[in-house]
Amino acid sequence: MKIATFMHAGRVQVGLVAGDGRHVAPLDVKPEDTPRGALSLIERLSAGAPMPAAAGEPVELDRVRLLAPLPLPRRNLWCVGRSYRAHAQELQSSVFKGNDGATETWPIVFTKVPECVVGPYDDVRLPTCITEQVDYEAELAVVIGRGGKNISRAEAMGHVFGYTVVNDVTARDVQMRHQQWDMGKSFDTFCPMGPWIVTADEMDGRRTRVRCWVNGELRQDASTEQMIFDIPTLIETVSRGITLYPGDVIATGTPAGVGLGMNPPRFLRPGDVVRIEVEGVGVIENRFVG
Amino acid sequence: MKIATFMHAGRVQVGLVAGDGRHVAPLDVKPEDTPRGALSLIERLSAGAPMPAAAGEPVELDRVRLLAPLPLPRRNLWCVGRSYRAHAQELQSSVFKGNDGATETWPIVFTKVPECVVGPYDDVRLPTCITEQVDYEAELAVVIGRGGKNISRAEAMGHVFGYTVVNDVTARDVQMRHQQWDMGKSFDTFCPMGPWIVTADEMDGRRTRVRCWVNGELRQDASTEQMIFDIPTLIETVSRGITLYPGDVIATGTPAGVGLGMNPPRFLRPGDVVRIEVEGVGVIENRFVG
Repeated sequence: MKIATFMHAGRVQVGLVAGDGRHVAPLDVKPEDTPRGALSLIERLSAGAPMPAAAGEPVELDRVRLLAPLPLPRRNLWCVGRSYRAHAQELQSSVFKGNDGATETWPIVFTKVPECVVGPYDDVRLPTCITEQVDYEAELAVVIGRGGKNISRAEAMGHVFGYTVVNDVTARDVQMRHQQWDMGKSFDTFCPMGPWIVTADEMDGRRTRVRCWVNGELRQDASTEQMIFDIPTLIETVSRGITLYPGDVIATGTPAGVGLGMNPPRFLRPGDVVRIEVEGVGVIENRFVG
Repeated sequence: MKIATFMHAGRVQVGLVAGDGRHVAPLDVKPEDTPRGALSLIERLSAGAPMPAAAGEPVELDRVRLLAPLPLPRRNLWCVGRSYRAHAQELQSSVFKGNDGATETWPIVFTKVPECVVGPYDDVRLPTCITEQVDYEAELAVVIGRGGKNISRAEAMGHVFGYTVVNDVTARDVQMRHQQWDMGKSFDTFCPMGPWIVTADEMDGRRTRVRCWVNGELRQDASTEQMIFDIPTLIETVSRGITLYPGDVIATGTPAGVGLGMNPPRFLRPGDVVRIEVEGVGVIENRFVG
């Protein structure tokens, strides 16, 4: 299934994208729950409740505004740094400088605030007074279903509700000068997400192609099979001693090809459009504005 | 005012601690809001609403169980690293190794998940299978009232709702091996908070004594006037490009005297009791259990 959060008829709704890819069928989710999009649905389904009934006729996707499937995640998103070997290489003299050089020991895990999430086609605002080095990071994101703590690799995939696409937008200068990355990753609008969540019965993220274009130029193109730490390992890692909850998001890290890795670096400017496609999930495309 | 969240008569309530320090007077806060403690009250007061009416007679503090004033903050807590010069010095060969040596440029800012908050006298569980290096960090925490973005130093204090005490419990080995600190700071129960929030009309945190004892032995004793970055600077920093919301917590960092800074290091063991007193706010005291 593809679960979307969308604005239609003046209110936020949650629905299922039809097999034709052109319609979305609203679900009977309580109005007080819809501002957080698919979150309450994920909580209920993960607790064993049945899928809610349809609530009205399918609507053409062209006639709705897609929001992030989780417009306000329940807490900061978990994000993985240095997830692909080639990306570790391209930033070894900048972001990863001074860090432990052993890329294969433990994942780097940081967070983004929930309030920086925006929709799959929303604008991203460049905080031009604060940073001159805004960069894109195309990523497959895992959405947790059933929660848990100390989840083993072997059990991890049973805790995945589904997958979505995020752009882990990053202010490189801020990321580096605060040494801890959360701030440089958390500026308002710095997490486009969508276009929907594809449930775990339809894909497993093991050999999934992740691509990113800036103004039509292909910049990132990799498969998740090149990840240093696979999805079960990431879930095992993040849940060690820390309870995961339904709706938690783990952004699995970005492949090589970010702007900072180019020579000279190429950062995003007002008017740039970043398009990310994750195979089996879909496309998000966001304009960066000054 | 001292605003407390407490369990009494089988339900969570929010109230004002009386001037005698021995009673708490429940406030008329909706039952659906009380699980998040003082959060909805902070949101309403910060929006200009009046203080809710009393709801029943004052109760003796001895007869209630104090919870964290914010048992589940609205998102990850903001935390400051390397906040006091002497603490920067004591950890320069471990936690701060390889980091930019210029302590006076930008604060280090990281986060703790909201779900790791526990009450002022609750037990902290040592995740003994995962870490052997659990450490205490006594801190004054600022609770944001009126939200905002790009808040200047000059305006910052007008955005403070009040102050509370936190123990920024840290698994040193995990903190260092993931390079980003959020995970090593976020194990379940790793953020004792309380005993209440003291509102900003009663103190300003500028010359506030912070002390910490382990099993009765004084380990940390400093004044917030020794902070490298004062509270207005921290608020200005965290709000640069990132909207702050009512109820956001900024833990202002810990003074010298942590276990890792001792020679040899002394980490917490099952049965240890950590007591933290912040002048003008109060005391939290937590037993560490295996």
